[in-house]
Amino acid sequence: MNFTDRLHLVVRESQSHLCIGLDPELDKLPAGLSRSPDGLVEFCCEIVAATAEFAAAFKINFAFFEALGHAGWRALEEVAESLPENRIRIADAKRGDIGNSAKYYARAIIHELPFDSLTANPYLGRDAAAAFLEDPAKGVYFLCMTSNPSAQEIQHFPNRATPLYLHVAARVAEWNANQNCGLVVGATQADELREVRNTCPELPFLIPGVGAQGGDLAASAVIGTAQGRVPSLINVSRAIIFAGNDQHFASAAAKAAQKYRNDIQVAIDESKE
Amino acid sequence: MNFTDRLHLVVRESQSHLCIGLDPELDKLPAGLSRSPDGLVEFCCEIVAATAEFAAAFKINFAFFEALGHAGWRALEEVAESLPENRIRIADAKRGDIGNSAKYYARAIIHELPFDSLTANPYLGRDAAAAFLEDPAKGVYFLCMTSNPSAQEIQHFPNRATPLYLHVAARVAEWNANQNCGLVVGATQADELREVRNTCPELPFLIPGVGAQGGDLAASAVIGTAQGRVPSLINVSRAIIFAGNDQHFASAAAKAAQKYRNDIQVAIDESKE
Repeated sequence: MNFTDRLHLVVRESQSHLCIGLDPELDKLPAGLSRSPDGLVEFCCEIVAATAEFAAAFKINFAFFEALGHAGWRALEEVAESLPENRIRIADAKRGDIGNSAKYYARAIIHELPFDSLTANPYLGRDAAAAFLEDPAKGVYFLCMTSNPSAQEIQHFPNRATPLYLHVAARVAEWNANQNCGLVVGATQADELREVRNTCPELPFLIPGVGAQGGDLAASAVIGTAQGRVPSLINVSRAIIFAGNDQHFASAAAKAAQKYRNDIQVAIDESKE
Repeated sequence: MNFTDRLHLVVRESQSHLCIGLDPELDKLPAGLSRSPDGLVEFCCEIVAATAEFAAAFKINFAFFEALGHAGWRALEEVAESLPENRIRIADAKRGDIGNSAKYYARAIIHELPFDSLTANPYLGRDAAAAFLEDPAKGVYFLCMTSNPSAQEIQHFPNRATPLYLHVAARVAEWNANQNCGLVVGATQADELREVRNTCPELPFLIPGVGAQGGDLAASAVIGTAQGRVPSLINVSRAIIFAGNDQHFASAAAKAAQKYRNDIQVAIDESKE
């Protein structure tokens, strides 16, 4: 089954478009958990178990694990193993390299580890993702329009009428022969989200920037999913995983996940009426 | 001492512009070494010891270590510790992330590990490197014009007269307040290398693509260094580290490193006459 078909299936079965971002900053772990690789594993595994029923996907941010060296990488392996197989499992590593390096990254991320998909940087062109794109079952979400303040410095080049991010979107649509490409499009600018959707109605989006970053949840859900031909995933990280900061953190995360899941579904349903 | 001043110092003291790229593909390790993380460590440490006198810098490609999971990451830590302190030590991880993620990557790569500098992807704008750029002693080489075949798909947008890579070069020059920015510019297109050099005479380059990839060594040395105001590093990986494939691999690598070092210096000296 190719990645796009799998997305359709998982979103239908989970009745959710929510991706839960595991961005476990060590300094923010709830009271009572050790601020160590073991603490990260305990935290993430409890969050995953408590929220899985409300999620279509989980996305692991590699930065927070790599910061702890080889013990952090081992923690990442444990957390990745804990993700449910019937959900989309995204490696958020934003890799972009070429030739043999890219092949080895692919070996690490989608063969040695149990991920279905990953985020990738498009700057090096198709080569950078060739090793990932070969397998139709593995999805690659390319960075397109990101939600950080300085994104415009590069992504809006050369001008607002024909910005780089739309060029990237069009190129990625060409790389999608195996039905396994997607785009990372930030939720913070609804107009730009709509532009990308119009350029690529057939590509699934991964939409960060909702929740702590303040992006518009309903607009993202509607533009990203209902106005495209494929389901998009709305990613929420801190607003879910750090919803509570005491020993009840997992049930607080579950409540937050349920609310986001429902809000997204309501927005999509209303847009269809 | 800021990174650019340190570059001047190291290049003068080592009398070399050669960067040796540690891209240790497991499948290519010389006969007699185990194809394991331990084998990687043994191979890299022997290469480093044998070639250090001819090198200004070493660059470790993270992909080949990450492919081996947490044991590979531990091997990377060991190899990084073996790099001589009086050389430039580059983490070739091509990271590019934002906000807290970038901070955690910085913590991993230039605080927990003994690197002076790293490669970074500019697609997310200055934010992606803010955590690295804060420390004047740490250098950041941003991908600008890469040597892979599909690089043009994105880097030549929107046209040859005003390509994205020159826009990136100009932005990076603006981010260089702490004298710690550089550019990765492939050796395979001398004309484009010259364009970037003219745009940014004050930025040091890291120039891959020489050796196995066929880039013009002399042109790279002259354009990259003699025609700029700061020393550039010419990176050679496979043609040095895999110069031999039997038990004498380290001395074969040393011979190849010496030859590349000398050829680069001759080209630079001749251009000054």
